[in-house]
Parts: sequence; structure tokens; C-alpha cells
Amino acid sequence: MKVQEYLPFWKKLTKEQQNRFEYAMRERKAAKGTILHNGSEDCVGLFIVQQGQLRVYTVSEEGKEITLYRLFERDICLFSASCIMSGIEFDLVVSAETDAILYHIPPKVYQELMRESAAVANFTNELMASRFSNVMWLFDQILYKRLDSRLAAFLVEEMELLETKELKITHEMIAQHLGSAREVISRMLKYFQNEQIVKLGRNSILILDEKKLMEAAKESLR
Amino acid sequence: MKVQEYLPFWKKLTKEQQNRFEYAMRERKAAKGTILHNGSEDCVGLFIVQQGQLRVYTVSEEGKEITLYRLFERDICLFSASCIMSGIEFDLVVSAETDAILYHIPPKVYQELMRESAAVANFTNELMASRFSNVMWLFDQILYKRLDSRLAAFLVEEMELLETKELKITHEMIAQHLGSAREVISRMLKYFQNEQIVKLGRNSILILDEKKLMEAAKESLR
Repeated sequence: MKVQEYLPFWKKLTKEQQNRFEYAMRERKAAKGTILHNGSEDCVGLFIVQQGQLRVYTVSEEGKEITLYRLFERDICLFSASCIMSGIEFDLVVSAETDAILYHIPPKVYQELMRESAAVANFTNELMASRFSNVMWLFDQILYKRLDSRLAAFLVEEMELLETKELKITHEMIAQHLGSAREVISRMLKYFQNEQIVKLGRNSILILDEKKLMEAAKESLR
Repeated sequence: MKVQEYLPFWKKLTKEQQNRFEYAMRERKAAKGTILHNGSEDCVGLFIVQQGQLRVYTVSEEGKEITLYRLFERDICLFSASCIMSGIEFDLVVSAETDAILYHIPPKVYQELMRESAAVANFTNELMASRFSNVMWLFDQILYKRLDSRLAAFLVEEMELLETKELKITHEMIAQHLGSAREVISRMLKYFQNEQIVKLGRNSILILDEKKLMEAAKESLR
């Protein structure tokens, strides 16, 4: 897919603006585990996801993590350029959850184009609104939904993303996604095992009863 | 203050655009307690706060409330026009916490101006980013800070806003602000009373020891 197809405002740019974009954009590969953006430590710019999966999360003062949302093919990572957005006062971390192929847009170029073009500025608005909505959904989950429901929904999501019922993931990693503690996740997974929903292995979780899992996940499926 | 002084993009508008704004804007008074916007039930438009205080909050399926942030003089309420922003998928409620004098901007007019003017679109971005930052701060409070700290900070904030040490507020109302339950708040306030930080009266809380209160509030002061 050509890079212009990822940017809905393309036809509203002048030829000169399009050239500026094309000249500045670079394809970039990121290996699984790469930290692409680390809060206010950097301002790398925007990333368009061609292939792969990014994880956007926060890290507390004590090092506790929680995943805010993930970005998939065709998604655009905005907060890796948070320095160009007045009003952003929080730190997010963006990492490659899988090997990924991205387009990179330098922050200054994007900022100029936002200032010149209402189409680019409005598109950026939509992106931010979308991310805000993701966070509000998570906020509601944290405040009002039970952890077993959130855990079950996470397992369903992993099963669908990885297209397998045998999830190679540690309890610690799940805790970091859900903003919980490993011991709590382990306890809950053992409960799921007692209910014969999953079977726990060494660093793996085998989903035995998809139907029961979906039922447990009901309140927390996106 | 003239309405133009509330809108930093004013000089970047054409005369025709300025006229369109001025023609559409109306001063509006809202009595304390008025619900100005109720989630997806309406799309009333934007409000500029001339005088008074607005409360922006969410209500869960079970009716539990939590205050996301407040808006004060010179602030602009954006989400009362959420229908014009693609990507907003959550419901907020906006109420007048005090009698208020507002300027009202109809959603269609603002939407047209966002589409025409990069300055208006970028300003809207900044507003949204600011609100997003407020919510991320609250999210961090909910995830990582203790309720006693949040309660103490709330009392400090009320004391400063109302300019009095005798707060006429019920435990239920505090619970609705903090997303907690009345019994939990009552228990915690009794604890503060035992520590001689406050004295509880009938529907009132008298702050006795401001210094101790600030100390308890430390982790949760904005």
C-alpha cells in the first residue's frame, strides 16, 4: 500500500505539501521489543503501522505498567510526537509487540502541516479523539468491571490476535498489560483452570473452553 | 471581557468568519445544578465560562459517578459538542456546579469553522489534549494513589474554591466526585476526625488542621 493511502487528507494537500511529506517520510523496521517512544524523553514523530502491532502503555513511578491500547495495521501512532501537541501533559511508552514495519513522519514536518492545513489538523483531532475514547473505555473497565472479566477478555483478544489456543505468555506479562500484580493474575488463572476454562503450562496457557471464556469475558470485550 | 478575548485564534479568522461567530454566539445563564450536556442525548454546542464553575463527569450503567475535571472562568467546554468530533465514543455529563454565566457556540457553526480554519482546528486539538491530560492524571490517581490522599486533596480543593474552612457538602456528594461509596467516604472522614484534621457536623466538614490535611493530600494535589 502506498503511504498516501494511509492518510485520508492526502487529496486536500497542495502538491508542495505532498512533496514535503513524501520527502520526509521514511520506512522503518522495528524488531519485537523495540521501545519506539519513551514518554517525554524523546519526540520521535508519528508512525504509520504497515505491518505488526504496537503497544501503548504507561509506567508508574514504581514501575507498574498498564496497556492503554494497541495499534495495528493502518493505525497511526500520534503520541510518539506528543511534543508537537500543546496540552499533552502525560507520558506514554510505545513499543513494538511484534516485529513491525512502519512509516515514520518527523515531528517538525507534521507540525508545520498541521498549522497550514485544516484537513491535517482535523485528522489529528480525530486520531486523538479515538485514543481518548480507548482510554475512557479502559477507565470504565478499571472502575467498574471485575478483574476476572478483564483477564478473560485479554485471553480472548490474544487468542484472536495470535490465532492459537495455546498462548505463550507469562503471568507477569499479563499483569503488566492489565495493570495488576503477578500473584493476583496467577490466582485468577488457577481459578480458571479449576473451572476447566484453561490449562496452565510452563509459560503457557492453553484455552480449553472457548465458550466459557467468552462468557466470563462478556463485560470486557471491546 | 469581550467574547473574542476568550478565543486565542480570533485574529487568524477572516472578517466574515468572525461575523459568523459573533452572530451565532449567545450569552447564557445557568442556575446551579443545571445539566448543560448529557452524554449522547444531546449536542448542545460549546460553552465558554465567563463566570462560575462547571463539573464534567461520567455516570456508569449502575449510576455511579466520578468527576473527571472542573471548568472555571475562561475555560471552554468542548465535549458538550462531542457530536461534531469524529472519534469521540464516550459519554460525559456537564453540569453547573455554581450559578454560571456562559457564552454558547452552536455546534454546526463551530464545526464549519474547524473545517475552514487550521487555527480553529489546532486550538480544538489543544483543548482536547488538555482534557485528555486531566483524565490521564485522574487515571493515575485511581490506579496508584490511596483514597485517603484523594479525599484530602479534594477537601483542600474545596476549601480553596469556596474560600472557607467550613465545607457544606455531604459524604454522598464527595463519593460522587471521587467515584467511591458514601460508606467508604464516611469511614475515612471519621478517621480524619480521629486524627483531629477535621470536625464532622451535620452535612458539613470543618477543617481544623490545614497543615495535616495538606500533608495527607500530598500525592493527590494537582
